[in-house]
Amino acid sequence: MFPQKNRNDVNTIMSTLIQSPAWQALQAHFKSIKNTSMRDMFAQDNQRFNKFSTQMDDILLDFSKNRINDETFKLLCELVRERHVFDWRDKMFAGEAINISEFRPALHTALRNRSNTPVFVEGENVMPKINRVLAQMRYFSGRIRGGHLRGYSGHLFKDIVNIGIGGSDLGPHVVCDSMKPYAQRGLDVHFVSNVDPTHLTEILKRVQPESTLFIVSSKSFTTQETMLNAHSARNWFINHTNDKKAIARHFVAVTTNREKATEFGILEENMFEFWDWVGGRYSLWSAIGLPIALYIGMDRFEQLLDGAHAMDQHFKTAPIEKNMPVIMALLGIWYSHFFAAQSYAVISYNQYLRRFSAFLQQLDMESNGKTINRQGQQVDYTTGPIVWGETGSNCQHAFFQLFHQGTRLVPVDFLIPANTCNPLRNKLGNQHEVLLANFFAQTRALMRGKTEAEALAELEASGMAAEKIKAVLPHKIFAGNKPTNSIIFERLDARTLGSLIALYEHKVFVQGIIWNINSFDQWGVEYGKQMASDIENVIAEGKETQRYDDSTNHLMNYCRLLRAEFP
Amino acid sequence: MFPQKNRNDVNTIMSTLIQSPAWQALQAHFKSIKNTSMRDMFAQDNQRFNKFSTQMDDILLDFSKNRINDETFKLLCELVRERHVFDWRDKMFAGEAINISEFRPALHTALRNRSNTPVFVEGENVMPKINRVLAQMRYFSGRIRGGHLRGYSGHLFKDIVNIGIGGSDLGPHVVCDSMKPYAQRGLDVHFVSNVDPTHLTEILKRVQPESTLFIVSSKSFTTQETMLNAHSARNWFINHTNDKKAIARHFVAVTTNREKATEFGILEENMFEFWDWVGGRYSLWSAIGLPIALYIGMDRFEQLLDGAHAMDQHFKTAPIEKNMPVIMALLGIWYSHFFAAQSYAVISYNQYLRRFSAFLQQLDMESNGKTINRQGQQVDYTTGPIVWGETGSNCQHAFFQLFHQGTRLVPVDFLIPANTCNPLRNKLGNQHEVLLANFFAQTRALMRGKTEAEALAELEASGMAAEKIKAVLPHKIFAGNKPTNSIIFERLDARTLGSLIALYEHKVFVQGIIWNINSFDQWGVEYGKQMASDIENVIAEGKETQRYDDSTNHLMNYCRLLRAEFP
Repeated sequence: MFPQKNRNDVNTIMSTLIQSPAWQALQAHFKSIKNTSMRDMFAQDNQRFNKFSTQMDDILLDFSKNRINDETFKLLCELVRERHVFDWRDKMFAGEAINISEFRPALHTALRNRSNTPVFVEGENVMPKINRVLAQMRYFSGRIRGGHLRGYSGHLFKDIVNIGIGGSDLGPHVVCDSMKPYAQRGLDVHFVSNVDPTHLTEILKRVQPESTLFIVSSKSFTTQETMLNAHSARNWFINHTNDKKAIARHFVAVTTNREKATEFGILEENMFEFWDWVGGRYSLWSAIGLPIALYIGMDRFEQLLDGAHAMDQHFKTAPIEKNMPVIMALLGIWYSHFFAAQSYAVISYNQYLRRFSAFLQQLDMESNGKTINRQGQQVDYTTGPIVWGETGSNCQHAFFQLFHQGTRLVPVDFLIPANTCNPLRNKLGNQHEVLLANFFAQTRALMRGKTEAEALAELEASGMAAEKIKAVLPHKIFAGNKPTNSIIFERLDARTLGSLIALYEHKVFVQGIIWNINSFDQWGVEYGKQMASDIENVIAEGKETQRYDDSTNHLMNYCRLLRAEFP
Repeated sequence: MFPQKNRNDVNTIMSTLIQSPAWQALQAHFKSIKNTSMRDMFAQDNQRFNKFSTQMDDILLDFSKNRINDETFKLLCELVRERHVFDWRDKMFAGEAINISEFRPALHTALRNRSNTPVFVEGENVMPKINRVLAQMRYFSGRIRGGHLRGYSGHLFKDIVNIGIGGSDLGPHVVCDSMKPYAQRGLDVHFVSNVDPTHLTEILKRVQPESTLFIVSSKSFTTQETMLNAHSARNWFINHTNDKKAIARHFVAVTTNREKATEFGILEENMFEFWDWVGGRYSLWSAIGLPIALYIGMDRFEQLLDGAHAMDQHFKTAPIEKNMPVIMALLGIWYSHFFAAQSYAVISYNQYLRRFSAFLQQLDMESNGKTINRQGQQVDYTTGPIVWGETGSNCQHAFFQLFHQGTRLVPVDFLIPANTCNPLRNKLGNQHEVLLANFFAQTRALMRGKTEAEALAELEASGMAAEKIKAVLPHKIFAGNKPTNSIIFERLDARTLGSLIALYEHKVFVQGIIWNINSFDQWGVEYGKQMASDIENVIAEGKETQRYDDSTNHLMNYCRLLRAEFP
């Protein structure tokens, strides 16, 4: 059952990962450390922070609050060598076709290659065309932001509506949300992704046709959700303006399909290209980032690229023991396989980062939610974890109960900027300092726990009656020993955000390499689409169906009744 | 390691749950069914839908796409009898002090007891005071919505800002989000919860003091995050108005602490009471729902209560085999314990429900993220799962890859209304129909999977070269057999939403009873708060610290440097 066995299982011998000496050694070592408490390890070793922390620019990763000791860390690092992670890293950066099921490279790093050193794909240096599109984005975003390009009736653009889904939504969305303090005054940005007509409808209620710029983001210009929303937006626009020609001033496209975009009414000069060696979930660095450039300006968009490039350089040059994405990848595998943790949480103590975990969900689960290895065999270990999370301090009042006292082990990444751009202080305190205090307190409390003796002493000191103490005491004990990473940085600006996103990209990459899977395809999303298209026709016919399984037939027929009764 | 062992483990004998005959029988039965495919079960039994579905009003739960057969279901239902779930249910409804660590009842059901039959707490019928507060809410919300109560300068109220955290935020927040189509024109509602000053700051940018009503929601009127935000909002208001007296017209409180609310400047008549037998995460039915009543009107708020009451009646009267919350609870336990699924996902195919999973995270994880049973012993089984989710169809392009082809088993609840209030149709199709088609397609694809033979036939039909087919084929196979619940209802209105929320409340309750834990306390949130208060003082002093563990000290000192350098 775990991992899920495929009916067509071809893999009966032990995988190279499980066979590898470092893995076998980790397996043996795990038995000796699995019950060791971090509280004791901290008491016995006052160098844990120095050993188990690393820094890139101002971004500090403290991973000392993990259930590892010197031996664990040594063996995990050994795994990196045995699995040739750095060879694969170099292949990725060099543009080799590491996406083996789609026969192409994965070159998001070239998009932010600020050093501008040549990167070759099939003999062609791709940097010139990358730079050409960046220049096009700079020109266009400058003209919009400067008021040189205006709506059909001469209005300044006040609203950008990005229409895209998946990678054409989550990346630019999380960046725009996070960069709100740096947005141009008077310019707002909105993201429509869901085919649910409510999504577009509610956003259109808030904008005016004469001051709205629509970006239609779809590589093929055929993504169903995106094109449905794009056409509905186009109809809305024409209904209000009665002017089909005005479409050219209000719609632009991020696409490679010039023909279809032209048909839609978009000008050649307003089409922004990207390439098939950029995966959707790695595409915010490309023209897919156009809403970012419009919202915060091209200089800041380039700072975002700079930050990612800095993390790329760190990933390429830092030794294993100080290599941030490598370390986070190893810890993830440690908990995932050995401690059987199926998920990890990312908790940003920053309200602007509220969609960071939604972005990471795609990045991680779409990349590594796989069971077939690079040789086409079923894996015999677990792969990509579930990612989830909300913002702190909020979620301390929601699900932290389970972190502290539940039966599930959830490793957590805690993120916080040292400074806020919105300081507030009143007679009860300094809000950002309280936020910081909660950040430090939670990671410490999760690590330490609270013993029965400590809980008892506290209850007695509170003057509670002995009878009540007896009832309450067991509930006041905390097992502790819950692992966390702490990531702290100076402030949340474009450069730092770029570095943080690249950090997780490379973490996911390293895990994919160790697991011997292709992190760059996503065949799993195709099947549902295919089936939906069949079902859509049946729904449109409006008749009762017996075409599918007993469950689907009944659901569809019940739905039909509900719709027919209340049209 | 799993479940996490407490240092103070006192429980060495097998728990009554593990010992119970139904559990033992399930254990044996599991071995025989764990590899059975649903595809085969559907092929062999054309009565699965009739056997494995149930309905309450228009809400249909189809649970036939689960890895169960007649025997599984019989044994799971037997567990309900053996664990006396219905006795506990009756105790809850009757107001017995089932929250044993806090010595009080859990009476959220009384708040929506639309039959108005007496409910006694320590000899007192609580219905009159519940009705009194409802009447107060009706009067107040009517006066605001009707424009009889206005801001200090005579402006109509245009914005409601709710300041609260945890249960004082998530419940009303998800309801207001979901009920947007029913909101009063010209009235908007905002929720501030995070102590991060960014949260309040960004909302205050969008509202004007003269037309904003603040609700401060805190039972004790001492919740740190809430009171910090409330005082910052109060300062902002006074800075703009230079009129302390105006506070009384712009701030109201949902609290039991009249003294502190008076001190803040709030009038007695604008204080809305609730009671200590209402837990935070079950409080949206109480005065905590005031922002709902203001936003959509008291009639609709009462429809919300009606819907919850209808689900209460269903829970009280339906036989086990047709009892919706009971069935969902049992399936959760089936996957959690026997299939070792640590999480479940809730995917609403409705953009208005985008925060439903965030609400459920608190409801479920704060209720059942426990390791200590009602007798104060460590449990020897896993308890509450991790809950997560986003809206469909969006997340099909994000993390569905992992559902389809990952190594983690994630049972999923799919929710959808048959009708939309925002129909959109264009030349490419009817958007809501496409949404429905995706809903049906995903649950069907997850159930069926795709065999190697099927995948091969498709690739060959596509005309792909044999060499390419060889490389791609393994990635086009889907194991299937992924369990889902389908929940479909006529439309998302207040009554239905009330029923849905109550459904999950009772599901969580039933699981807590079967696991023999107290779902109504949350001691796990206290420890971090306590530690934060200590750390806050150290931060405020601004000096280097050696007070804590090596990790926390270094983190705090590094943060201090980053803050000092860039003040």
